[in-house]
Amino acid sequence: MSDLARELKASIRTIPDYPKPGVLFRDITTLLGQPRAFRRAVDELVHPYAGDNIAKIAGIEARGFILGGAIAHQLSAGFVPIRKKGKLPHETVRIAYSLEYGVDEMEMHRDAVKPGERVLLVDDLIATGGTAEGAVKLLQQMGAEVIAACFVIDLPDLGGRAKIEALNVPVRTLMSFEGH
Amino acid sequence: MSDLARELKASIRTIPDYPKPGVLFRDITTLLGQPRAFRRAVDELVHPYAGDNIAKIAGIEARGFILGGAIAHQLSAGFVPIRKKGKLPHETVRIAYSLEYGVDEMEMHRDAVKPGERVLLVDDLIATGGTAEGAVKLLQQMGAEVIAACFVIDLPDLGGRAKIEALNVPVRTLMSFEGH
Repeated sequence: MSDLARELKASIRTIPDYPKPGVLFRDITTLLGQPRAFRRAVDELVHPYAGDNIAKIAGIEARGFILGGAIAHQLSAGFVPIRKKGKLPHETVRIAYSLEYGVDEMEMHRDAVKPGERVLLVDDLIATGGTAEGAVKLLQQMGAEVIAACFVIDLPDLGGRAKIEALNVPVRTLMSFEGH
Repeated sequence: MSDLARELKASIRTIPDYPKPGVLFRDITTLLGQPRAFRRAVDELVHPYAGDNIAKIAGIEARGFILGGAIAHQLSAGFVPIRKKGKLPHETVRIAYSLEYGVDEMEMHRDAVKPGERVLLVDDLIATGGTAEGAVKLLQQMGAEVIAACFVIDLPDLGGRAKIEALNVPVRTLMSFEGH
């Protein structure tokens, strides 16, 4: 593990038994709140895509908005919010996605991406990958070329990475935590 | 109105009768989605605070996260999410705030700001100012020095600015729309 990965990992707070007994919740707010950690995490996520003609950053509500906003600004790209259903004011496209128990739906504005646009997907964490998988499918359905999906934290034991790679989208993460 | 303000204002989409009849909804997603408009909006919000020793950017869920994340990265500040109740995993402080009809509650992690820290509050739009007022009070209760509250859009007829200025916090906005 690099010095950067070690520094960033040390800035994550682990909360036992949240949101339910037996779960170790990885809290990214302590990374976001430290100027150096937040700056380094964004810069590390961004640098492979500098000069790579990224048109849009798609961020998943809500923590993906924080990182995604910074990355969009840094790459001089546009930002596309992917939100829980019923939150966007204009005409949307919608997709169902799997949660741990049951399904929910997410939406994006129909005119948010154009066919052929190169898009990066951003969220704070990939666990089972259900949310990110839904977001990638929604973007691909609208004709976007999803260049990569970027996350600060990977929980590899939950298998999310394979779901995204199965859609021909590379996954980039900055650290991983065993267990869940 | 400056050329910049005119360009940014032209990037906002107005949706009639949303979320209810008679309301003109100002949709910022069309600004966020245009690389040049998003970049210029963030840069214009940031520049007065360069070198001003801002420790934290506090962003209001959810659209305030997009702009706030970009501003925090740009100023090398930390980011503090202010969220609807029940969304933050660690110990929080909570405040009630006024909505158009009734009240709701917002939360921040108790350790998110330290006494004396210089904080900028960020959201996309100020209307009646109830949400921003709650956020400023929460930050001030925790001892933060709220240097300013920044918004892309002001709806001046709804009187939000005066609520924030009454808390000794200057308000900075990039454009305004008459009516509501």
